[in-house]
Amino acid sequence: MSSPTLKVGIVGLGRLGQRHAINLAQRVPNAEVVAACSPVPAELDWAASTLGIATGYADYDALLAHPGLDAVFLVTPTSLHADQIIAALRAGKHVFCEKPLSLDLADCLKVEAEAARHPQLTVMIGFVRRFDASYHDAQQKIAQGLIGKPYLVRSQTCDQNDPSGAFMRFAPTSGGIFLDCSVHDIDLARWLLGNPVPKRVYASGTNAIHTGLQAFGDVDNGLATVEFADGSMASFMASRTMAHGHETLTEVFGTGGRLAVGSNPRLNRVEISDAHGVRNECTPDFYARFADAFLIEAQEFTDAALGRRTLSLTLHDATEATRIGLAMTQAMREARPVAF
Amino acid sequence: MSSPTLKVGIVGLGRLGQRHAINLAQRVPNAEVVAACSPVPAELDWAASTLGIATGYADYDALLAHPGLDAVFLVTPTSLHADQIIAALRAGKHVFCEKPLSLDLADCLKVEAEAARHPQLTVMIGFVRRFDASYHDAQQKIAQGLIGKPYLVRSQTCDQNDPSGAFMRFAPTSGGIFLDCSVHDIDLARWLLGNPVPKRVYASGTNAIHTGLQAFGDVDNGLATVEFADGSMASFMASRTMAHGHETLTEVFGTGGRLAVGSNPRLNRVEISDAHGVRNECTPDFYARFADAFLIEAQEFTDAALGRRTLSLTLHDATEATRIGLAMTQAMREARPVAF
Amino acid sequence: MSSPTLKVGIVGLGRLGQRHAINLAQRVPNAEVVAACSPVPAELDWAASTLGIATGYADYDALLAHPGLDAVFLVTPTSLHADQIIAALRAGKHVFCEKPLSLDLADCLKVEAEAARHPQLTVMIGFVRRFDASYHDAQQKIAQGLIGKPYLVRSQTCDQNDPSGAFMRFAPTSGGIFLDCSVHDIDLARWLLGNPVPKRVYASGTNAIHTGLQAFGDVDNGLATVEFADGSMASFMASRTMAHGHETLTEVFGTGGRLAVGSNPRLNRVEISDAHGVRNECTPDFYARFADAFLIEAQEFTDAALGRRTLSLTLHDATEATRIGLAMTQAMREARPVAF
Amino acid sequence: MSSPTLKVGIVGLGRLGQRHAINLAQRVPNAEVVAACSPVPAELDWAASTLGIATGYADYDALLAHPGLDAVFLVTPTSLHADQIIAALRAGKHVFCEKPLSLDLADCLKVEAEAARHPQLTVMIGFVRRFDASYHDAQQKIAQGLIGKPYLVRSQTCDQNDPSGAFMRFAPTSGGIFLDCSVHDIDLARWLLGNPVPKRVYASGTNAIHTGLQAFGDVDNGLATVEFADGSMASFMASRTMAHGHETLTEVFGTGGRLAVGSNPRLNRVEISDAHGVRNECTPDFYARFADAFLIEAQEFTDAALGRRTLSLTLHDATEATRIGLAMTQAMREARPVAF
Repeated sequence: MSSPTLKVGIVGLGRLGQRHAINLAQRVPNAEVVAACSPVPAELDWAASTLGIATGYADYDALLAHPGLDAVFLVTPTSLHADQIIAALRAGKHVFCEKPLSLDLADCLKVEAEAARHPQLTVMIGFVRRFDASYHDAQQKIAQGLIGKPYLVRSQTCDQNDPSGAFMRFAPTSGGIFLDCSVHDIDLARWLLGNPVPKRVYASGTNAIHTGLQAFGDVDNGLATVEFADGSMASFMASRTMAHGHETLTEVFGTGGRLAVGSNPRLNRVEISDAHGVRNECTPDFYARFADAFLIEAQEFTDAALGRRTLSLTLHDATEATRIGLAMTQAMREARPVAF
Repeated sequence: MSSPTLKVGIVGLGRLGQRHAINLAQRVPNAEVVAACSPVPAELDWAASTLGIATGYADYDALLAHPGLDAVFLVTPTSLHADQIIAALRAGKHVFCEKPLSLDLADCLKVEAEAARHPQLTVMIGFVRRFDASYHDAQQKIAQGLIGKPYLVRSQTCDQNDPSGAFMRFAPTSGGIFLDCSVHDIDLARWLLGNPVPKRVYASGTNAIHTGLQAFGDVDNGLATVEFADGSMASFMASRTMAHGHETLTEVFGTGGRLAVGSNPRLNRVEISDAHGVRNECTPDFYARFADAFLIEAQEFTDAALGRRTLSLTLHDATEATRIGLAMTQAMREARPVAF
Repeated sequence: MSSPTLKVGIVGLGRLGQRHAINLAQRVPNAEVVAACSPVPAELDWAASTLGIATGYADYDALLAHPGLDAVFLVTPTSLHADQIIAALRAGKHVFCEKPLSLDLADCLKVEAEAARHPQLTVMIGFVRRFDASYHDAQQKIAQGLIGKPYLVRSQTCDQNDPSGAFMRFAPTSGGIFLDCSVHDIDLARWLLGNPVPKRVYASGTNAIHTGLQAFGDVDNGLATVEFADGSMASFMASRTMAHGHETLTEVFGTGGRLAVGSNPRLNRVEISDAHGVRNECTPDFYARFADAFLIEAQEFTDAALGRRTLSLTLHDATEATRIGLAMTQAMREARPVAF
Repeated sequence: MSSPTLKVGIVGLGRLGQRHAINLAQRVPNAEVVAACSPVPAELDWAASTLGIATGYADYDALLAHPGLDAVFLVTPTSLHADQIIAALRAGKHVFCEKPLSLDLADCLKVEAEAARHPQLTVMIGFVRRFDASYHDAQQKIAQGLIGKPYLVRSQTCDQNDPSGAFMRFAPTSGGIFLDCSVHDIDLARWLLGNPVPKRVYASGTNAIHTGLQAFGDVDNGLATVEFADGSMASFMASRTMAHGHETLTEVFGTGGRLAVGSNPRLNRVEISDAHGVRNECTPDFYARFADAFLIEAQEFTDAALGRRTLSLTLHDATEATRIGLAMTQAMREARPVAF
């Protein structure tokens, strides 16, 4: 095909980075991965041998200087996001960056300010659930008035328990369960409620299994309530201790009905009837649940960067998600409501 | 209360007979169990001590002569049904009799003829599913036109496997799986399709586990198709080898939609999410599934016998169920369609 | 039967009172309704003509003096509960009383104190959900360790919207949505978590449809979080604005799994497949959902009063439910956590 | 990437042909569509403008002579399949061909014979359901013994009703509902039961809405039973008159449990609770249900043709599906069992 392609540099090739790389290299028709960047040589080898990405950089600035590069895909530690985005923008590159934008509100605002200086560049934070077919359908139905005026979102991100507690090593830098997990739910709630302004949050949590989290002011199960200025509300749950799998569930209550997305985290269409009853297996992790959405997300970023469509989500949405997530974390730690 | 009560004699106090007796004695306000009849002295003792039924008879004719008796409830072996019904009618008693009416078509017709001579007496064969709230709701919805014109019923009666094979001792007298189990589905199909006239049946079966049934010309899994004269159809399955519980499922396909009754044989409203997935437990047997319907059935019989309502089902319905069940059995044994 | 019966006086014959009366009169074998009490003559007439309860009293003290009376069933306005229970106890009667015990904590404690003086008398507050077969099953499974250690209950009572807003006339005396509706969920959470001690509650709410509730400090949708001293938590939702029906849903999260009771408020076992998709109808109100539980509850009260069993729930449970409900109400009105 | 690619010619660019072309051109990494063949110039234009397939042929033989062509993808009328496959094989090309292989058993055998002369060439008939993740999972579970020994498959292909009756124009050439729709179910049953040998079939049908089909000996609703030599059985339903959407459902009953694939044809993970009850929307057509499977199928064909894997299904499987489908059609038309 002679249509233009977006020349992308993938930055960060951990587990999720590899999946993004595969999508961009093989399944997004107008994207081409021209270079990879990672401090880990084995990851660059993987990119070369598996996806034919010949050029690998250990250094991010070197990647930005790659000839003909149009865009970067940042799948890096959150603490690097703000600086890497700003550097890319200054180098004239479109930027996709995994969520959350940052754990620091000032950094979020700095990124917003820099992006405002480059209106021709696409910047997208990967709130992947917005690209899931079911969430998209729900949002469309709400926009069409199917459930009247939405006034309450209840949303949860519940991970399957990892008895090894491997996630504990991210505890010092994850920002806590609300910024790590609930940030998705916060973004969904804002999106599905029509971007209301937050007024007050309250949160609490407990450590049901991984008591070691307490040392980091973190919990393995958290609850939070957000009240918005227009009277709408959101209720969140985040957990790392599910026995049955990863369960992302979002309900939107409206004056004329309710939509639920994900009320049974079924793995597929198989139903088993045996001595355990009638049952279905569950999605083991977020990637099993959102694999298709990651592809659609990459496609939409590519199309937006190529000027073929506008994005529905903004950098400010990412800032708001961090702002609310930080307030929830504070509310839990101080056992008091936090007002905005 | 001063309203009249129906004085009932319960005949047969096996497991199902005891349940009928409890319903009549304790939960049907206008029924009173004044006597019991059983050849087993222990069963009469149970009736006396548990339900306060003071009078017990070993002999059926003696029961019929019990002073003031209004009605009998026959929960006896199928081979006795026809004679017992006829004797009760001749004694001027209302009759409830468990399904099937008989395994012999001539006997069915004899009972119909006798009943016609006693139009003031209520005779009811216990097609209990007609009294289940869900089946009743489905029938009402069809009558209201919710699914347009119904043209196909698919119905199954699938029992949980009993590894002990205890049911094998009924094999010589049960009439086979179609008369024992499918007779309910046949009755439902006729009811829900508006009593169409059968034209042709075909059936087949296999012994998946209980190969000993072969000696009786019986199977532990059977399939049958019935074509009716008006173009409507029915497809039946009967099984004795389910791992998960008792599953009665009936679907009615209409030109404007489909109704399903029982698509998951859930035991209750509890859902378990654990290492087995998301699951619900199942009804273990027909009584767990239809306990409420047995009570409604007894109530409706009582009300009909007291002249407060008319019955929706007739003796002829029971004859038709036997007629079709016999044809299905013949079709399976001869591996050919049987026409009516 | 010669076994002893409990001679009951039914007090209050509104809609729910009538249902209790029918259960006691017709379906609880060992109960006998010997008298009724109501200030409304038509209600006493109904009791006489429908249930044959010949004796009716306008005056509660007169009822308590009814010869041979063993017990009272109080289905009266909440504001009368405490005094009526105390009077009955002093008259030597067993007492069943509808929930909530009282909206006033001091009154709850007074009732507890009086009851302690009559240990031979049964006093039961009608937390009907404990008698529902599904909740009972869930509680048994937890006790057996099926889900490990339970650490979080999420429970909701959501009523179908009544566009007429008829419930508004109860707003001045209902105590608010948390005491009217969530009191059930509070009791369930305590029961299913093993009676933890409450530490702190937070609550918030909104008026999505019935803005007139604001005048009473009430809301039509409320959210609350309870933290217990042992680290366990509860999250509640109450609503009066569901479009699809009455939905009572309770989830219990444990370290080894989760139980959900009522995740789809299906009316029955009928599933409809038509232009609206695949669907089931819903229970319209709490009585449709809990009709069986009301009967089991009446049976258990009767058996306990007759000395045949002990009760699993205590007056103190009812006091605790009021205590927590009051704190939730206060937290919402003052927008701050309330500590115990 | 330097890995070899399969140079494919797409033949037939109707609706399904276009979807195959998009998959091959954009989403199968190792496939390249180098030429298209269609008698319709507008279809070749579409291939050029949308997918950049520069070379288009009106003539199939010309396509086969395209330089460097490795494989053909036949999405053509069934009546052409046999000759086109044979021509491709003689030209040394790998062949993918849509189902059914042929409506003529002799043609099936001719194709099998020709393929046997070219063992180095991959020939695959598109029984797409084998490549669906859920069916694949079910098959794996059966192979692992999860449900014991499978003895009965019940499977259905039910299309949403098209009130326009557009499908009627295919009636003269479709081979009837069993060869057009049930051929998938037949293939699934053989696969999931371990390729049993058919012994006898019976079938019947009715025209619930599209009575015009009668003129072609066809029906809009069909039922069929297949008995296999090893005692296992299959029961099929095919329909063109569903109100709610396309529903493909397959159940496998084993001595230790049952698997169901597709028991609710849910469109996605959205659940709506409103005045219609609790509901989900449904897949409108087979492509909405099996879009992912079509991609996996194309990937597996490509990998097989490139020598990277072997196929799990054979040409003989396709012959067997036609053989059984023809017998079912005959059984229905002659109202008698057809033995093999």
